[in-house]
Amino acid sequence: MKETTLCPRLAKAMEMIGKRWTALILYQLLDGPQRFNAIESALPISGRLLSERLKELEKEGIVLRTVYSEVPVRVEYSLTDKGLALSGAIREIEDWSKEWL
Amino acid sequence: MKETTLCPRLAKAMEMIGKRWTALILYQLLDGPQRFNAIESALPISGRLLSERLKELEKEGIVLRTVYSEVPVRVEYSLTDKGLALSGAIREIEDWSKEWL
Repeated sequence: MKETTLCPRLAKAMEMIGKRWTALILYQLLDGPQRFNAIESALPISGRLLSERLKELEKEGIVLRTVYSEVPVRVEYSLTDKGLALSGAIREIEDWSKEWL
Repeated sequence: MKETTLCPRLAKAMEMIGKRWTALILYQLLDGPQRFNAIESALPISGRLLSERLKELEKEGIVLRTVYSEVPVRVEYSLTDKGLALSGAIREIEDWSKEWL
């Protein structure tokens, strides 16, 4: 039988990235830093929900929110190292979905 | 901007494997065919919920339920080719969770 000590972390990971829209947001951010509006127009998701998800991902240290002191203020979202480290998993799921769904 | 035609399939994939416990069940089945009780005792999940998830996975063609006509009847669950094709993704998420969580 498998070591159950691995389960809590895998469960936690799935709880984070398995949340509705989260993987798609990360997938979109693999393209590089983007403004809120760019992410919003790329995904079939409401601004309110996107904002909520981005805050969660920021809190988890997966997404970085950078504010540029310009006029008007520019805000960009990007993947942290922790977020970029998920790219392999996201690509694998993407490949699987292309082959099997 | 990314092709939005990819989104529906990635969204569908995440909807399937992002469901609570599903990835852990698949992870457990990577060890090979197993009886219901073996899966149940390996995971912190109720029998009722496990049964529900296995039925969903069977319906999606990811898990195969095999009944052996023995006395008493033996029932085993295993991954189909479609299910096995998810092993790369699950391993990637496992690796990520070990490094970052």
